[in-house]
Amino acid sequence: MLWINIDRTLKMSLKRQVYEQLRMKILRGELSGGERLPSSREFASHLGVSRNVVIDAYEHLLAEGYVEGQQGAGTFVAEGAYLDKDLKSRHISFLDTLDISENESKIIDFRSGIPALDKFPRQEWGKLAKRVCLEAKDAIFGYDYPEGRSELRHVLCRYLKRTRGVLCHPDQLVITSGATQALSLVAKLLLSKGDHVIMEDPITHEIQTIFSSAGGSLYGLPVDEHGMRTDYLPHNLSPSFIFVTPSHQFPLGSILPIQRRIELIQYANKTNCYIVEDDYDSEFRFQGSPISSLQGLEPERVIYIGTFSKILSPALRLGYLILPPTLTERCKNLKWFDDLHTPSLEQMTLARFIDQGQLESHIRKMRKLYQKRREVVRKSLKKAFGEKVKISGDSTGLHLIVEFINFDFTEQALTKINNYKIKVYPVELHTMQKGKHKNKLILGYGNLTKEEIEEGIYRLKKALEDNMVN
Amino acid sequence: MLWINIDRTLKMSLKRQVYEQLRMKILRGELSGGERLPSSREFASHLGVSRNVVIDAYEHLLAEGYVEGQQGAGTFVAEGAYLDKDLKSRHISFLDTLDISENESKIIDFRSGIPALDKFPRQEWGKLAKRVCLEAKDAIFGYDYPEGRSELRHVLCRYLKRTRGVLCHPDQLVITSGATQALSLVAKLLLSKGDHVIMEDPITHEIQTIFSSAGGSLYGLPVDEHGMRTDYLPHNLSPSFIFVTPSHQFPLGSILPIQRRIELIQYANKTNCYIVEDDYDSEFRFQGSPISSLQGLEPERVIYIGTFSKILSPALRLGYLILPPTLTERCKNLKWFDDLHTPSLEQMTLARFIDQGQLESHIRKMRKLYQKRREVVRKSLKKAFGEKVKISGDSTGLHLIVEFINFDFTEQALTKINNYKIKVYPVELHTMQKGKHKNKLILGYGNLTKEEIEEGIYRLKKALEDNMVN
Repeated sequence: MLWINIDRTLKMSLKRQVYEQLRMKILRGELSGGERLPSSREFASHLGVSRNVVIDAYEHLLAEGYVEGQQGAGTFVAEGAYLDKDLKSRHISFLDTLDISENESKIIDFRSGIPALDKFPRQEWGKLAKRVCLEAKDAIFGYDYPEGRSELRHVLCRYLKRTRGVLCHPDQLVITSGATQALSLVAKLLLSKGDHVIMEDPITHEIQTIFSSAGGSLYGLPVDEHGMRTDYLPHNLSPSFIFVTPSHQFPLGSILPIQRRIELIQYANKTNCYIVEDDYDSEFRFQGSPISSLQGLEPERVIYIGTFSKILSPALRLGYLILPPTLTERCKNLKWFDDLHTPSLEQMTLARFIDQGQLESHIRKMRKLYQKRREVVRKSLKKAFGEKVKISGDSTGLHLIVEFINFDFTEQALTKINNYKIKVYPVELHTMQKGKHKNKLILGYGNLTKEEIEEGIYRLKKALEDNMVN
Repeated sequence: MLWINIDRTLKMSLKRQVYEQLRMKILRGELSGGERLPSSREFASHLGVSRNVVIDAYEHLLAEGYVEGQQGAGTFVAEGAYLDKDLKSRHISFLDTLDISENESKIIDFRSGIPALDKFPRQEWGKLAKRVCLEAKDAIFGYDYPEGRSELRHVLCRYLKRTRGVLCHPDQLVITSGATQALSLVAKLLLSKGDHVIMEDPITHEIQTIFSSAGGSLYGLPVDEHGMRTDYLPHNLSPSFIFVTPSHQFPLGSILPIQRRIELIQYANKTNCYIVEDDYDSEFRFQGSPISSLQGLEPERVIYIGTFSKILSPALRLGYLILPPTLTERCKNLKWFDDLHTPSLEQMTLARFIDQGQLESHIRKMRKLYQKRREVVRKSLKKAFGEKVKISGDSTGLHLIVEFINFDFTEQALTKINNYKIKVYPVELHTMQKGKHKNKLILGYGNLTKEEIEEGIYRLKKALEDNMVN
């Protein structure tokens, strides 16, 4: 209902107050041409004034041309009574709205971790979302428990057991609003000011921020072609936890072999700390045998973080935590005071999507697509740079690493490269100890077509040639 | 794809490894009767082994009766090969799942803040959700900005301006995952350890927890029938902010008159602190004229928190913050590191729901319903307790306060009352200074039918009579 301020302590008559405020709203464009005013009866009861007050005010506005109307049809704001020049406050109909950023000129963006957005299963998801909304019990629309819907936790547990060797009971799962929330819950759960966190270096820059702003003191271990260098695990430290991306190190892309996994677990047992396993895109493994998740090897010590951002869409904001039973209660409590719980209808939609086998069939389809795209990246790089580049970290996922012989991606170089209408991201962005990975780029290809990849690499080649000359 | 651990360092043959692990999965019920195994070609490529390894393992399982199959049709897990007695790990089809809590015997629950769950506009929302999923641009499925969709922020701004006298620009809005996240963002934004927060006493217990666990030192001001006692505002304190529920004090239900609002603003200006205005259910005002929001009076000092939990459904987890421009950047940053952003499809669905006028028409319908329910509560209370109770805080919202002459709701009394299959909530639960509101109950009626309210109050009467005797 229309909002108007009635102040009985003022000397101004009530009729005048209603009239003046409506007039100003029309002049300012807060009420726009063609909009219907509430009926005098309804409006009067809403304002707590007698109906005559509203009728008089409407008649006054009518007389002055601010509104139009006729007996029985209602009262409407007249066109052209709008004064304000600030277009931003005008009524923009939803369907007219253009998101300018989406129309930006055709920059080819090699950002990693973006799935093929045009391949989201719109039909299936939309249909399920509607069905859930129509068919779920009434209680689904009420407040829920912080750990999330039991239907989703059951289905997910079973799916993870079957496809990833994760050992868990539905009670150990907490559904989160994406992996980012899972990470920030882990930080709250395990970190006090000054606590040590052992991490791979390089590792996603944002994760460093989440842990360090929660008070953690970060201790980086170098990464080689087999992932975290477990032989560098420090013996004089009592870390709170070790954070690791064993299935596909981010950004370098290596896979942690079983021997190092065991070393990691032995270290965690010895120092009595947790291991946080971030498994963000291992569903897209193109070659090699699967290796047991750390969680499956030592469920009592490992906190496992999963997400649907890469296999479905980051816009859903759906992820999860698998926790040792000793940590679940505190985690649920933290989730409750963070945002109560993750939206229920989406959880139910996802549960059905998994239960009906649609998720696995979508993953299969996408794995084939991404494998093709990866081939295009590799071929294009070889064609453009031949022996001047080395490709790695490409066995899994939505990105690979390209290392250039004789070229460092300094800030200055990157700015120049951006002028060629491409966006590329250096590994250096994610390093703790600076200077060791200057010649490496992370190339994400999940959301780029064959043509875009080829054109993008071509532009990169042009950019680098020009840079070398200048 | 099915997960299996292949370890080439073992002496066991690859065929045996595949066979053994499939067998165990079947015995444990992780693969259940009738489930289809992947084709040998697909599975072999997934495991990185030769196809013969898989064919041999399948044949072995077939010979032993673990699986069934025929040429061309595929291989299926046989029925009855399941050993594990732990029913929890069995495959529970999504549609068979029963949420036991929803089937609990008919306790009548006077919990406040729950809207009529059976009145959620399923048809309209479900239809819009599907349309958004089908029609939105591809980019909607990617990562978004932390402040939320610009479509929703524009539509919401306009709606708030028109219906609640809130003055804001879409850039000042941050869409949050419910009001709880908004509160925890405010805590992170404004509180350092030891900072003072002035609050009404009583005030929602969970909000006290959010602010105090963020390091805030809570300073309670008493509440009377006109809300916060602004004449008690301390002169020797430099608070970080004042938290207030001026439209419908929770729990006591009073509305803060304009004079006290002005005092509050003057105080905030003098002490240079913010005011956090929590407007959780003012859409359901049954009597009296609307009063300007604090935000509308002093947009530079007031942070406004709104939610769709009461007017639509708490399960959506949709809320928002309106911030003075000086605070928006930091708030977006905090939101990003909390959960990146609120789910995009739901934001778009809500934007359409508001833009098409469906929200306002839903609110109108619900206001009428809640007004009727409120009448039933009042009449039932009068009938049951006559002059022994005083009703207050009932001008707005989904709950009212009933004060009993001569009865204190001690923990013991409440336990006894619960035996009568009703749940009631004492105001004492939300007090900082204990002992002042012992004889008051909060009765929420949003999600109770006429019959449930009548029966519930009757049970309360019985419970109190028996309690008085014992």
